[in-house]
Amino acid sequence: MGEFELIERFFKRPARNAVVGVGDDCAIWAPQPGQQLALSSDMLVEGRHFLSTVNPRHLGHKALAVNLSDLAACGAVPRAFLLSLSLPRVDEDWLSDFSQGLFALAVAHDCELIGGDTTQGPLNISITVMGEVPVGQAILRSGAQVGDDIYVSGHLGDARLALEAFRGHLSLPQNIFELARSRLESPTPRNTLGVSLRGLAHAMADVSDGLLGDLGHILKASGAGAVLSLPALSGLMMSRPLWTCPQEWLLRCVLSGGDDYELVFTAPASSRQALESAASDCGTQITHIGHISAEPSVRLVDEKGTVQPATYPSFDHFA
Amino acid sequence: MGEFELIERFFKRPARNAVVGVGDDCAIWAPQPGQQLALSSDMLVEGRHFLSTVNPRHLGHKALAVNLSDLAACGAVPRAFLLSLSLPRVDEDWLSDFSQGLFALAVAHDCELIGGDTTQGPLNISITVMGEVPVGQAILRSGAQVGDDIYVSGHLGDARLALEAFRGHLSLPQNIFELARSRLESPTPRNTLGVSLRGLAHAMADVSDGLLGDLGHILKASGAGAVLSLPALSGLMMSRPLWTCPQEWLLRCVLSGGDDYELVFTAPASSRQALESAASDCGTQITHIGHISAEPSVRLVDEKGTVQPATYPSFDHFA
Repeated sequence: MGEFELIERFFKRPARNAVVGVGDDCAIWAPQPGQQLALSSDMLVEGRHFLSTVNPRHLGHKALAVNLSDLAACGAVPRAFLLSLSLPRVDEDWLSDFSQGLFALAVAHDCELIGGDTTQGPLNISITVMGEVPVGQAILRSGAQVGDDIYVSGHLGDARLALEAFRGHLSLPQNIFELARSRLESPTPRNTLGVSLRGLAHAMADVSDGLLGDLGHILKASGAGAVLSLPALSGLMMSRPLWTCPQEWLLRCVLSGGDDYELVFTAPASSRQALESAASDCGTQITHIGHISAEPSVRLVDEKGTVQPATYPSFDHFA
Repeated sequence: MGEFELIERFFKRPARNAVVGVGDDCAIWAPQPGQQLALSSDMLVEGRHFLSTVNPRHLGHKALAVNLSDLAACGAVPRAFLLSLSLPRVDEDWLSDFSQGLFALAVAHDCELIGGDTTQGPLNISITVMGEVPVGQAILRSGAQVGDDIYVSGHLGDARLALEAFRGHLSLPQNIFELARSRLESPTPRNTLGVSLRGLAHAMADVSDGLLGDLGHILKASGAGAVLSLPALSGLMMSRPLWTCPQEWLLRCVLSGGDDYELVFTAPASSRQALESAASDCGTQITHIGHISAEPSVRLVDEKGTVQPATYPSFDHFA
C-alpha cells in the first residue's frame, strides 16, 4: 500500500466544516466572524511517550486527547486538526485501530481532520489542533491574581502510578493497575469544562507535566506564588479510595506525576458558587486545592497550617 | 539544558502578529476579516528526507520551505507556523544553526513561529504552516480545464541529481554537484508567484514528489489528462546549460525527481501575457510545458509531435 492509498483508506473523510479538507496542497478553512484561533502542537514518540505494546486504538485516542487538552486550557472549542505520522511500516491492522481511536474522539468533539502528512520512519505522531474562542476570551496562564482560589479538575497521579508499574518500580493490585493504566492510556480532555470557565477563571493551564510544573507556568507568567493544601492534594488520586497507596508515591504522583490532562485554574473567591455550578453542569469534579499568594514560591501546608518541604520536579523531556 | 530553556533560548521570539505566541498552552491568532485560512503540515525524518550530515542551517531552511511551498501552491500568504521537534540530544551548536536557517526564511516571508513542541527521540521535524487567502480565491488542484496551458516555475530535476550522487548512483562534475546540492538542500518556495497567480491559474500544485506525480494530482482532481512537450521538459534542468546530463537521467529527474518545490499550474491560453508579466514581476521564470487534454492520461510528445512512452513513477514514501 502506498502513501496516498494509506491516506485515502484510513484518514480521508468527507470535509464537513472545512472548505477543503484532506487531499489538496493545503486545507482551506473559513474562521467564524468574531472568533480568534487557538493553535497547539503535540508530538508523541514511541519509547518516550508510549510503549511499543500500547493498544493502537488507545494511542490514536491519546494523540488527539493531549492536543485537545491544550485547547481546553485556553477555553477554546475544538474545530480541526492536522496529523503528521511517521511509521516504520504499513501495518493495516495497526492503522485501522489507530484511526478508529483517533476518529472516535475527534467525532465526539466535532473536531475535523483536515490535513497532514505520512512518511516512513521511527513511529512518531505529531498533531496540530485548531480551536476557536471569542475575541479576548481566551484564558491565559498570565491572569492569576493574589488571593485567587486554585482548583484542579478530575483526578491526578494515577497515570504516573501506571507508568511506575510498567517500569517495575511499583507493584499494583490488578484492579488499581487497570484503573491507572486507563488513566495513562485514555485520558479525558476537559474541553466542556474549559469552555464553561470563560469569564470565571483568571488563569488556566493543563496538567501534562505534573501539577507543580504546570501550576508553576501560571505562577511564573502571573508573577505570583501559591499555597497548596496537602489534605486536599492527598484526596486527588482516583484510585485512592480503593487501596492504600504507599505514602512515598502518593504525593509524588499527585504533585509531579504527569500525563494527567486535567485543568489547573485560578478564580476569585467570589466565583465559588458559579464555578461549582459550571463544573456540575459539565459532570466534571473540581477540587479547591489552595490559593495564589504574593510570595513567589509554592508552599505546601498540612491540616494544621504547617508548611512542609516541596521537592518534586516537573517532568522534563531532556532532564 | 531542559526543554523549556531550549525553547526559550532557540525558538522563542516576541509575538508580532500573534495575540499570544510561544509560551502558553495555545497560541492565539486573530484572522483578518475576509480571509480564509490555508493550513498544511510536512514532516521531515532523518535518513528519509535528509542525511545526518546535512548542514543544520540548510535543514532549518528546508523544513520551513517545504511547508511554505504548500501555501504557495494555493496562492496563500504565509502568516504563522508551529514547529514540533524530536531530537536525540540537546546539541547547542546544531540548534543554533538550525534555528538560524529556520528564522532567516521565516523572517523573509513574515511568517511567525507561534508554537510547537520539543521532545527527545529520533530526529524528526514536523511543521504546520498557516496562511491567508481572500475568501474563494484559493487555487485548488481541481480547477484544470481542457485546453488549459500547463506551466512550471523555475527548474526541475537538479535536486534529484544531487540525491543520486549522494547515493553513489551517479558521478557529477564538482560545479554541477554543488549547484544540484544547493537545489536539494535549500529549495526556494515560490510564494510571491503563487499569490500573483490568483485569478489567473485554474489549478495548481507544488512539485514535491516529481512533476508527473504532482501534475497527476491535478489531473485526477480535475478529471482530465495532459499532453507534455519533451523539448520543453528537457530544458527545465538548471544545470543543463553547464554540462551534458546523461540522457537516462535527464528526463527521469525532470519528470519524477522530487524535492523541487516548484509550482505546476494550468491557465487558459488567453492569460498568457498576464502570466508572463506576473512571473516577470516576481523574478521567477515560468515554462509552458504542454496542455490539458480530455483524454485522462499523460502523453509525452517529441518535437515532431510523436507520442513517446512515459513510465516514470512518482515518489512514494512507502513504495
